[in-house]
Amino acid sequence: MSPRIAFVGVGRMGANMARRLSECGYPVTAVFDARPGAAAELAKELGCQHPGTLAEVTALADIVVTVVTDDRAMERIFAKKGDSLLTGAKGRVFINCATVTPAIHVEVQKRAAKAGADSLEACMASSISQARNGTLYLMVGGERKVFDRVAPLLRVLSDEGKLLRYIGPAGTAAQVKALVNMVMNINTAGLAEGLGIGAALGLDLATLMEVFSQTGANSRVLATDGQDMVNRDHSCFFSAAHAAKDSGIALGLARKTRIQAPLGTAAYRQFAKMVTLGIGDLDKSGVAELTFRGRGPRPRTKKARRR
Amino acid sequence: MSPRIAFVGVGRMGANMARRLSECGYPVTAVFDARPGAAAELAKELGCQHPGTLAEVTALADIVVTVVTDDRAMERIFAKKGDSLLTGAKGRVFINCATVTPAIHVEVQKRAAKAGADSLEACMASSISQARNGTLYLMVGGERKVFDRVAPLLRVLSDEGKLLRYIGPAGTAAQVKALVNMVMNINTAGLAEGLGIGAALGLDLATLMEVFSQTGANSRVLATDGQDMVNRDHSCFFSAAHAAKDSGIALGLARKTRIQAPLGTAAYRQFAKMVTLGIGDLDKSGVAELTFRGRGPRPRTKKARRR
Repeated sequence: MSPRIAFVGVGRMGANMARRLSECGYPVTAVFDARPGAAAELAKELGCQHPGTLAEVTALADIVVTVVTDDRAMERIFAKKGDSLLTGAKGRVFINCATVTPAIHVEVQKRAAKAGADSLEACMASSISQARNGTLYLMVGGERKVFDRVAPLLRVLSDEGKLLRYIGPAGTAAQVKALVNMVMNINTAGLAEGLGIGAALGLDLATLMEVFSQTGANSRVLATDGQDMVNRDHSCFFSAAHAAKDSGIALGLARKTRIQAPLGTAAYRQFAKMVTLGIGDLDKSGVAELTFRGRGPRPRTKKARRR
Repeated sequence: MSPRIAFVGVGRMGANMARRLSECGYPVTAVFDARPGAAAELAKELGCQHPGTLAEVTALADIVVTVVTDDRAMERIFAKKGDSLLTGAKGRVFINCATVTPAIHVEVQKRAAKAGADSLEACMASSISQARNGTLYLMVGGERKVFDRVAPLLRVLSDEGKLLRYIGPAGTAAQVKALVNMVMNINTAGLAEGLGIGAALGLDLATLMEVFSQTGANSRVLATDGQDMVNRDHSCFFSAAHAAKDSGIALGLARKTRIQAPLGTAAYRQFAKMVTLGIGDLDKSGVAELTFRGRGPRPRTKKARRR
């Protein structure tokens, strides 16, 4: 019999993972969100419950998948006192998918163990459509035997397991994820500079991008973000605010290990600057708003557009 | 009849381009280098002359390919007074392949025109083995009609023209090249941080690189330099000193166009730091010497290697 699944945090990622599992025959029994309206809506769509407390979520499921915003939200849903997923959690498995610090994953695993439950981190290196289609790249940290137990479910989310990687003990997958995003953010902010300077010089940007793609300047973000930077199409797949958060986590690891990371720092500052300027909700490609002449966070008037 | 070709600057790139053209039936008639020994040796190999003056080089050739170190060397070989390639240059075509500033290409084109000659920049985005095999990625700037005239020769160097791109007027190809290398250097320095932090955390670097390759962290330099960073194999294809020079040219363009380039600046500083530390002759992958714990420019003792 399939285990009963609950979701905590049903933003764009969580909701689409829930849809995917439901579609593949897993009984999604409960959904929960800090915004009760979002949970109610998805519950209606999936025909499941949307309890008012975290303890009820745990009561309704064998496996609880969490996709929350940050460390503070993790602290809250796995609280030691008050309403918590840990209440009556004996035998449950928590799969935590948010990009949060490695340290909080280690802490949650400890708390879960104390409650007789198991906990894994399943860090995602993909975006919304991959969540919907079950083609997420998943990096998993935690105990190997727990991983093996829930692997069938994780396979449904990761292209039949082709994109599923067991990394190591609790915290290690989150470390890898933070480094992935740090490097991605560096490449993104760097690309925005190359294109911004090219534009200011009056170079043909299609040619410039074609040359980048054929040379040592090539990168995954060139393919995913280059054209969007040129077109100012910053509809959000992965927000600048998230980029700042993830680069910040990676810089925390750099400080802890006393490794100098000047590129990581420079990229962090660019994305943090976007947040400060009030454009942190743009896609990470929006970092080009800082490097193209005449762009920026000011309201786009007709005059600005004409430049 | 094939035009007679001469080469000025026969370091690893220039010498291999000369070998390639010679092998493909182009009469290489003269070679010249600031280090006369290097020219004499190659002349012997190719069975051509190695004149003592630049004026003689021009006299012996229809097309002169130059691959020199920097702007100052360009100034010298195209000097207005004294020994110069411009002496008796009427009807000659100069093809300048070094990565130098866009401004010097514009200046050389002017001087060549005054001498009744033509000049192109043919910027290379590849390395030594591609020079030897005739598979260089070539970005060409200058007059279109001059480009068309020497295109047959350029095709022999660029995989039958598959890798040949006409960019625009004098200086534009050098601009593109500088931006390519700026972005490449950013990605390289950023990758070194990701791997260095990962190593300090005790993560398995093969896994980390595999994850990078499957995610938004993927890049050309991950494929070309990742393993070398891990192995400390910094035998030189493209030196840190060259990386610093090229990033410096790009930052000059950024200043000129008043575009902020914090990532470009951070990468420039890393490669410049390598030069300051006396390890500027390492390959650009050597930037990992700055980001892996226990590495650095100190002489590698057995103890250091054991770490």
